[in-house]
Amino acid sequence: MEQIYLDHTSNTPLLPEVREAMAPYLHGEFANPSSLHRGGRKNAKALEEAREKTASLIGARGEEIIFTSCGTEANNFAMKGLAAAHEKKGRHIVVSSIEHFSILHAARRLERQGYRVTRVPVDQAGWVDPQKVREAIAPDTVLISIMHANGEVGTLQSIREIAQVAQEHGILFHTDAVSSCGTIPTNVSELGVAALTLTANQFYGPVGAAALYVRKGTKMLPFFDGGGQEEGRRSGTENLPAIVGMGKAAELALSHMEERTTSLLKLRNRLMEGLISVEEVYLNGHPTQRLPGHVSISVAHVESEPLLLSLDMEGISVASGSACNSKAMKSSHVLQAMGVPELLARGTVVLTLGIGNREEEISVVLDIFPKVVERLRKLNRTPIPQEVRSVR
Amino acid sequence: MEQIYLDHTSNTPLLPEVREAMAPYLHGEFANPSSLHRGGRKNAKALEEAREKTASLIGARGEEIIFTSCGTEANNFAMKGLAAAHEKKGRHIVVSSIEHFSILHAARRLERQGYRVTRVPVDQAGWVDPQKVREAIAPDTVLISIMHANGEVGTLQSIREIAQVAQEHGILFHTDAVSSCGTIPTNVSELGVAALTLTANQFYGPVGAAALYVRKGTKMLPFFDGGGQEEGRRSGTENLPAIVGMGKAAELALSHMEERTTSLLKLRNRLMEGLISVEEVYLNGHPTQRLPGHVSISVAHVESEPLLLSLDMEGISVASGSACNSKAMKSSHVLQAMGVPELLARGTVVLTLGIGNREEEISVVLDIFPKVVERLRKLNRTPIPQEVRSVR
Repeated sequence: MEQIYLDHTSNTPLLPEVREAMAPYLHGEFANPSSLHRGGRKNAKALEEAREKTASLIGARGEEIIFTSCGTEANNFAMKGLAAAHEKKGRHIVVSSIEHFSILHAARRLERQGYRVTRVPVDQAGWVDPQKVREAIAPDTVLISIMHANGEVGTLQSIREIAQVAQEHGILFHTDAVSSCGTIPTNVSELGVAALTLTANQFYGPVGAAALYVRKGTKMLPFFDGGGQEEGRRSGTENLPAIVGMGKAAELALSHMEERTTSLLKLRNRLMEGLISVEEVYLNGHPTQRLPGHVSISVAHVESEPLLLSLDMEGISVASGSACNSKAMKSSHVLQAMGVPELLARGTVVLTLGIGNREEEISVVLDIFPKVVERLRKLNRTPIPQEVRSVR
Repeated sequence: MEQIYLDHTSNTPLLPEVREAMAPYLHGEFANPSSLHRGGRKNAKALEEAREKTASLIGARGEEIIFTSCGTEANNFAMKGLAAAHEKKGRHIVVSSIEHFSILHAARRLERQGYRVTRVPVDQAGWVDPQKVREAIAPDTVLISIMHANGEVGTLQSIREIAQVAQEHGILFHTDAVSSCGTIPTNVSELGVAALTLTANQFYGPVGAAALYVRKGTKMLPFFDGGGQEEGRRSGTENLPAIVGMGKAAELALSHMEERTTSLLKLRNRLMEGLISVEEVYLNGHPTQRLPGHVSISVAHVESEPLLLSLDMEGISVASGSACNSKAMKSSHVLQAMGVPELLARGTVVLTLGIGNREEEISVVLDIFPKVVERLRKLNRTPIPQEVRSVR
């Protein structure tokens, strides 16, 4: 049997239609879109078409899309580029304590440059209370960045309400929508955000293409200085094959979103319920306000790495606590912020479904998982104190 | 007849072997190299193999290679990351006046942050005199960045001598080797550089993969903060298909360099001599110390855009003055720095050969070019004053 891939938050496979759309640009159509000859002009047109398709996915205009190489670039660009352009107004930034490291570490970098950063706490479900964001605002706050959905625990944030708070105070609001965009509706007007990060490889497009949406008229300093591509906002030769793939993947995500969600939810609910029915297995994140394909669980009396590797041996690919870069993870900052006890946090695995997963695969996982957990618990029976269990 | 592509400095086609090497990573092998399951571990290995191959091309160690998304990113990273890490020592930077905009505009950005920047002039051939670099050094100089070869005019710089000057003063030396690396020998030990930029799409590898070499032990601040990929120096999900392609292209470039150069030189010399034998067509850059496939010419009494478009209509793709981003180019800063009179500079086109070009194509170009020039000159007879002509 083929490996059962339940790590879609780390990367998604390319859809065949996306691969086909990219193919010409990996073969004959290799001209630089900035070149003035016919090959270049043709590719400039392909670039703009991909931009329009990407914009459509989030209800934006093409001119509001800046292509970047990855979500980390877009998040760094948003934090550093927006902060720098508005530093005369103030040097205070608000983020949540469960942002991706590309936001949190960018914030830390800005702190070293003299900015103040407030990290808004979350509740036990990983939810950011908009009221807490309001309380964090200072007279010199220039930027708020709160993610749309958390990739580690799946919880969805109340972005519209936070955007409302930001708007009332005339503060720029950026949301990292890497984990949500392409999976759930992410319309920039409905959300009310000034800037938003999305990446193609979260919705069956390629790695190497991501985008930062910046609302028309928003001042921003470039992050890459250079030849003036992307209207001077992001210089550098465009990764056209990947960008075209992103456009195609965005188009498909938009047109198939409802059916994908329905089918993901069905599989997800069965998987989630099956997993947490195992003794001392606890769900992380909000039980309902969560990404449709997302399950994060903490397994008592087990360490996540042996659990991940044992499942891997049985043909099941899952992620450990921090799905984006497992190497960097010691103890997940997200689980810490949610108050998950360290002993439980250490037994966390993340299972994220994709549109290619099937019912039979869920059956296999639900058959194998309890056996693996039992085996590991026999090897490593760390007692979890009563007070820890009662927290969950 | 197919379009004759003479714009290899803007982008090169993928070699079939490179495309084949990339293919698995655009199909089944899509796991994130940071994932701990078997797919991720396998891809982490592929990433490290590509790193070793890329390092071999420049005589470096794998651990000294930081993958980036493009040359512009690597150049911005070098300028900003090296400057920031050494700002306690000083805030003065030396560049040449003919650097790529990703260096010059990054330098301008640093100037706005309080750095001083000295732009060393070039001679009429676009050559940077190492003695001029020596004279530019101040007690607080922390970084020198001079390109290996200029992509617009093809001139090769005396990097070894400049590196020697830098070393004598204990100053970090970075070279932008985007236009040279993969085409001519670019060994970091022989050149004596502390940092070097290279991109895959200049040697028949894909767009989306480039690298910054940084000598082991060199302090540098990250440019992308985040999940800690590339040993924390460049966070962000790795563009594995492109990186694997870069590794393969680097391997091929290294093993075929001599034969490629021999064949490029033969074609280039015939093309160059044929073009400048046309009345009032002048070569830009150094006549011999230049990239093997590179011809830049200024055509009197003609504007480069109509010339480029006319050649394009005849099936020949060339670049206008600034090959990297024609949109950004008004009057090339490189030609200005070399003292090429504005009237001549405005009639500049760049023809860059690749390993796929054939003798017959050169014959076609040398047949068509004089006719196109004659036709355009009849339409637009701008007199060039005597003193302008004598400069050339």
